[in-house]
Amino acid sequence: MVNFELIRGIAQPSPSKIILLVLDGLGGLPNPHTGRTELETADTPNLDRLVAKGVCGLADIVSPGITPGSAPGHLALFGYDPLGFIIGRGVLEAVGIDFSLEPGDVAARGNFCTVDKTDLVTDRRAGRISTDKCAELCQLFDKIVIENVRLFVCPVREHRFIAVFRGEGLTSGVTDSDPQQIGVAPRTITALKPQASRMANIANQFIAEAKKILAKHYPANMALLRGFSERPQLPTMGEIYKLKPAAIALYPMYKGLARLVGMEVLKTGTTIEDEFLTLKQNYANYDFFFLHIKGTDSAGEDGNFERKVRIIEEVDNALSCLIGIEPDVIIVTGDHSTPAILKGHSWHPVPVLLHSKWCRPDKVTEFSEQACVSGGLGRFPATQIMPLAMAHALKLAKFGA
Amino acid sequence: MVNFELIRGIAQPSPSKIILLVLDGLGGLPNPHTGRTELETADTPNLDRLVAKGVCGLADIVSPGITPGSAPGHLALFGYDPLGFIIGRGVLEAVGIDFSLEPGDVAARGNFCTVDKTDLVTDRRAGRISTDKCAELCQLFDKIVIENVRLFVCPVREHRFIAVFRGEGLTSGVTDSDPQQIGVAPRTITALKPQASRMANIANQFIAEAKKILAKHYPANMALLRGFSERPQLPTMGEIYKLKPAAIALYPMYKGLARLVGMEVLKTGTTIEDEFLTLKQNYANYDFFFLHIKGTDSAGEDGNFERKVRIIEEVDNALSCLIGIEPDVIIVTGDHSTPAILKGHSWHPVPVLLHSKWCRPDKVTEFSEQACVSGGLGRFPATQIMPLAMAHALKLAKFGA
Repeated sequence: MVNFELIRGIAQPSPSKIILLVLDGLGGLPNPHTGRTELETADTPNLDRLVAKGVCGLADIVSPGITPGSAPGHLALFGYDPLGFIIGRGVLEAVGIDFSLEPGDVAARGNFCTVDKTDLVTDRRAGRISTDKCAELCQLFDKIVIENVRLFVCPVREHRFIAVFRGEGLTSGVTDSDPQQIGVAPRTITALKPQASRMANIANQFIAEAKKILAKHYPANMALLRGFSERPQLPTMGEIYKLKPAAIALYPMYKGLARLVGMEVLKTGTTIEDEFLTLKQNYANYDFFFLHIKGTDSAGEDGNFERKVRIIEEVDNALSCLIGIEPDVIIVTGDHSTPAILKGHSWHPVPVLLHSKWCRPDKVTEFSEQACVSGGLGRFPATQIMPLAMAHALKLAKFGA
Repeated sequence: MVNFELIRGIAQPSPSKIILLVLDGLGGLPNPHTGRTELETADTPNLDRLVAKGVCGLADIVSPGITPGSAPGHLALFGYDPLGFIIGRGVLEAVGIDFSLEPGDVAARGNFCTVDKTDLVTDRRAGRISTDKCAELCQLFDKIVIENVRLFVCPVREHRFIAVFRGEGLTSGVTDSDPQQIGVAPRTITALKPQASRMANIANQFIAEAKKILAKHYPANMALLRGFSERPQLPTMGEIYKLKPAAIALYPMYKGLARLVGMEVLKTGTTIEDEFLTLKQNYANYDFFFLHIKGTDSAGEDGNFERKVRIIEEVDNALSCLIGIEPDVIIVTGDHSTPAILKGHSWHPVPVLLHSKWCRPDKVTEFSEQACVSGGLGRFPATQIMPLAMAHALKLAKFGA
């Protein structure tokens, strides 16, 4: 992982600009018919031009063989040890709907579920009720009163909601009520450490009240909670790198992750072009831009090889406007691989492109998984991307005399 | 090293099969006449076919420049930090003759030696007495009685034996009596920690009795002990990876190492073909197979370049029966290099081949040290082989949300 103490000691603010362009789930696997991955299939003249003048390689997000979720994936790209900074399920869901978590808040992920007459769970998702229905049920919880606690219950999507508990001295470190299987009763929430016993009582009280309120709302006649967690104490990118960072993303979860590390989230439109335009319009005001592209991952998850190819091409096209303004450092990479043929995240290392006036170019002239094998960056941990970006932007002083 | 906590948290049992084929001492150095290593000289159509569809690289067993013994070599291949899990000399010898060590047993490696009239060691190996003679002398120790201790003395080979002490509260942490040089007296064994003082007394008592018994058995008129150790507390591969692992090996030490990490050792014949046949016959009953080939290392140790080449070819030939049953993951590698021109283990990284439906192929089409330099796995620590095998067998869930 990155040695934050080291970086803090040598980071120096400067007007140079770094752009971290993340194509979510960028890495792929070959199409069995052509032998070429999504990135290798896409026509990407701009990326190829950047890599020809730049340097590239393959990065492991967590470590070889480990398939990362979106949270560890992005933390690693921002330079944070993904095994050292764990973001709990409750916090991630809260962050994902743009809920503004305060320090000390305890967030849990909730499921509306179905229980039978003997209180055994028969459907952990209550038949996937609609998001509207979910919102309606969440509102019913407004009447729950817990002494010295402010309660926020917000719908997420379908049967999913979040419950956030705010109050003096609350702490996570309690078990789940969600048994993660059917045919059994919801579990009583218990404290995993002595100081969490109040939180356990409060959570059980919430569950008991919720049960009463939901009794007549079959199939959503019960609620399950899991992943009680607090916003992790992350040093901000401003503190570590002395950067003024901005984030541009279309999906709430990525905006939330960016906020957790102290980025300012910029308002943008609804398309990839909008995102690039937002960057251009705000170029003078920040020295670091995280630009997130969601479509590559969604296409990969759907097993849609062609759509993933098209989105990569769309990004390549949008890139031309960026190349024109000549940022000091452009990094293009993914937060993990999402090969369309696997229809999900995978453990394969992500291709990384680094373009800067100060990089030592390799012989690679096209941006692809295959070509990155022989790139000048070699195979390296993704947490080193940020120090490399900082160095190439001449934002790191010499270490030692 | 592999983060066992991480792997434990995401490992999930599945019917997929992993084969770890270890050619002991596989890595080599070029023959000065041809410029080609043993592996590069061997005709290996099956290995080449596997690598063409697979991915390859070079692995460091301990770290660059470090020449590993067989124990750290294999531990690393099984995913155990070879610097964190040390197997003492006594335990390794015991394991090597298939002695079934119980928890708490303290094992020491023994040498029959020669001492002169003033008790100075004149030959640490007693003229390398025959193994038969060694067995005969070991039997004489049956009459040694030590209070509350059960003593096992077993011949190994030539002048070598093991002494195992079994009893309540015994612990290793004592010095050697073997001075490791001639012209000096055997050393008194002393405790390295307070709770080992009883063990030191017992060991000295054994040595004193042995001296009396051996007095008339010149040149083997004395015994030396070293490497007092206990069976290390290794988490099993079943616990870490949720695998049901089996081992196939011809030499006792490798069977013993496999047992230490919780593998079941399968009965097999005496040839390489027998070993592959055993795997095939037991294919349905396990999901992980460690298949050990000894001959490559022995040939390397003997400086017999041609024999090492022939054994690699023999393995390649036997492989065809395995390829036919289409295991989900095949790994081919070595536990260290043993270049014939060095006549011993070496520090050079080992070639690694990984074949699976889910690997991201590189451009390598032949399995050789030279070709592995540009393989898609790059240069990596050998402890990462197991997580990679697990990932490619789809036995690891996603980490983090």
